[in-house]
Amino acid sequence: MLSSASKRICLSIRSRILLPRAATIYPAIFQQTLFQSTLTNNAKQLADIDHGKIRIQRSENLKSLVPIKDLIFGRTFADHMLEIEWNANQGWLDPIIKPYGKISLEPSAMVFHYSFECFEGLKAYKDKDGNIRLFRPDMNMKRFKKSATRLTLPDFNGDELLKCLKKLIRLDERWIPAERGYSLYIRPAIIGTQESLGVGATTRALLFIICSPVGPYYKTGFDAVRLLATTDKVRAWPGGTGDAKIGGNYAPCVQTQIEAAKRGYHQNLWLFGAEDEITEVGTMNCFVLLKNEQGETELVTPPLNGTILAGVTRDSILSLARSWNEFKVSERKITMLEVVKAQEEGRLLEMFGAGTACIVSPIKEIHYHGRDFSIPLDPNDPSSNAGPATKRFADVLVGIQYGEIPHEWSVVVP
Amino acid sequence: MLSSASKRICLSIRSRILLPRAATIYPAIFQQTLFQSTLTNNAKQLADIDHGKIRIQRSENLKSLVPIKDLIFGRTFADHMLEIEWNANQGWLDPIIKPYGKISLEPSAMVFHYSFECFEGLKAYKDKDGNIRLFRPDMNMKRFKKSATRLTLPDFNGDELLKCLKKLIRLDERWIPAERGYSLYIRPAIIGTQESLGVGATTRALLFIICSPVGPYYKTGFDAVRLLATTDKVRAWPGGTGDAKIGGNYAPCVQTQIEAAKRGYHQNLWLFGAEDEITEVGTMNCFVLLKNEQGETELVTPPLNGTILAGVTRDSILSLARSWNEFKVSERKITMLEVVKAQEEGRLLEMFGAGTACIVSPIKEIHYHGRDFSIPLDPNDPSSNAGPATKRFADVLVGIQYGEIPHEWSVVVP
Repeated sequence: MLSSASKRICLSIRSRILLPRAATIYPAIFQQTLFQSTLTNNAKQLADIDHGKIRIQRSENLKSLVPIKDLIFGRTFADHMLEIEWNANQGWLDPIIKPYGKISLEPSAMVFHYSFECFEGLKAYKDKDGNIRLFRPDMNMKRFKKSATRLTLPDFNGDELLKCLKKLIRLDERWIPAERGYSLYIRPAIIGTQESLGVGATTRALLFIICSPVGPYYKTGFDAVRLLATTDKVRAWPGGTGDAKIGGNYAPCVQTQIEAAKRGYHQNLWLFGAEDEITEVGTMNCFVLLKNEQGETELVTPPLNGTILAGVTRDSILSLARSWNEFKVSERKITMLEVVKAQEEGRLLEMFGAGTACIVSPIKEIHYHGRDFSIPLDPNDPSSNAGPATKRFADVLVGIQYGEIPHEWSVVVP
Repeated sequence: MLSSASKRICLSIRSRILLPRAATIYPAIFQQTLFQSTLTNNAKQLADIDHGKIRIQRSENLKSLVPIKDLIFGRTFADHMLEIEWNANQGWLDPIIKPYGKISLEPSAMVFHYSFECFEGLKAYKDKDGNIRLFRPDMNMKRFKKSATRLTLPDFNGDELLKCLKKLIRLDERWIPAERGYSLYIRPAIIGTQESLGVGATTRALLFIICSPVGPYYKTGFDAVRLLATTDKVRAWPGGTGDAKIGGNYAPCVQTQIEAAKRGYHQNLWLFGAEDEITEVGTMNCFVLLKNEQGETELVTPPLNGTILAGVTRDSILSLARSWNEFKVSERKITMLEVVKAQEEGRLLEMFGAGTACIVSPIKEIHYHGRDFSIPLDPNDPSSNAGPATKRFADVLVGIQYGEIPHEWSVVVP
């Protein structure tokens, strides 16, 4: 007979956007899966996020703003944070905006042991008319939901969460630097908070959003990076979690980052498989512009095959390039062999990383199998730190983000 | 030029057992790796864990013991916990044993975002003479150090930590149930606590140990489990973290657990690669006893190739089997094809999972590619729920753990 622990499995059906879950599934290894007919008996509508129920508890001690020249990424935080608790019986409780402050959890909280944690990263910009703008925040909500679902964390209504997020940004508006290039980095996260060492879906979770004013990565122009191609460690695998923005994808990569830094490279280039397919650059998506063997100019980025994060900047660059219709645009496998061959034959035009943090990051060198391969920057300007296409993507994206180029991607926060 | 954020990289050299680290390595993607000659200038001896410096702050409100029949795995906790803080400037601070209670962290703490978290699991047993016993705790310390290092969390002296752990167990002795089969589950963990959204090695960490009284998995005999072979998701891969006991290995597996449960299976069998190699069973190591094609009786478990957790029970079973010298013992690749062929030819003898929680867990069925394959249990006793070898491993291990069979693996806590 199983112990009492093993007998406790109850499934609660969640509302249309909430997935079925085993509320207690430990020891899942051994439990006799007693589907106690709760599938129908306990079916009930769990509450979803409702921005109309938001409570606002203003900080009585507003902090001093940090001079923008002193900003370090992710170290300074605005006055308030958003919190929304969830539990398997009630669903999402009322959202609360409250003073930025500590989270207290029992040491048995599941987030400390089994990495029940996913997050997002987006930015709020202030345009020249003083409007607050977000860039494609619907994409972040969509990915956030996907990441949560992958970890059996609770799903939610992304439109409602976005409305809550906008209220928070509006309240902490003074933390959005007005200078072009600066922005307020927004970090939504969901963590599993059930107090249990059992491995299974959490019955309690906390969604929170914190905001951090950040500066531009490149204060004057670009700084092209040198990469160390990584062949001994692998970031993601088919059937794994490389396409979800979850905590567990990050800590394991730091050892490799440090190894690259120790060898004098800015970042590593993640490869995959026997053919050394290019996947990501550090924590960015990767783009290659080349003249292919058919003589066509082609912009290539690896496909969303499960091992690549579906970057918002990645998607935006692909959309822009397709709308320009000036060169072939491909989401396809690209190997180091292809890059090296193109480089050796003078067909490699530009390479860059792409992500929310930097928009684009030009690549000037890759160390691979004992050799340093130079990646071209601007052939017409030897002093330039970025190729013309790389610069163009950055210019257009920044223009859209700050509302200088009208585009539906830029959303004004009311 | 890079922003100030990108310029901050300082390396502090740690003492003999502490690895070099980049204390601040964000935005690592872009930073110009300025090795500010801190490698030599800032070299200093960081403090290691010292059990002699332990401070004990006893709880003034001891909790009531929970009746052992009501114990649910990992839900009840003893009165005290151990905490040891670490920072990159000082190393490990003095250990403190204090009343079990909450951990308060800023929402920007790295553990909430990037899964800087690793842990261990071991048990304290009470023998018939009232002694407290641990089972091979040195193996847990060794693996804990390895897991921490993999995530660039701080390394430490395992012997000193074990001495601290023993003090905690001794203080909370009344939480170790005296009944055979019951024990106190001990959970050491290290989390990264630096308040920063930058991805890089944490400059602050917290090591803690909590203890939870637990019951046996099988109150009367065994319960053999039915497995769903998983082919669409992958637990671990070469160059990943499958051999480290880190949080990030767990949350991503729960979706698959739930899928198996929904289909009526107790747990899933993790396969890997084009040949469907057997890797782990749920969160356990996997053993197959068969008559091989050469007619030899052979106990097979997958090798420690980086994708398998180096289980203490796994190692103990291999050692026992080798000392018995009654059949061939192999750490080698074993595919589903081999298992299915052996099953169809009547050569499959037994299969079981192995781990600290259950010791061994007999397997009676595997669903694979649309078919249910029966796994033999005891051919001489149709009513038995476990094969004779499976039972023998369990009996001997339990005998050692409770001090009934004298063995160096069982360590009495002074």
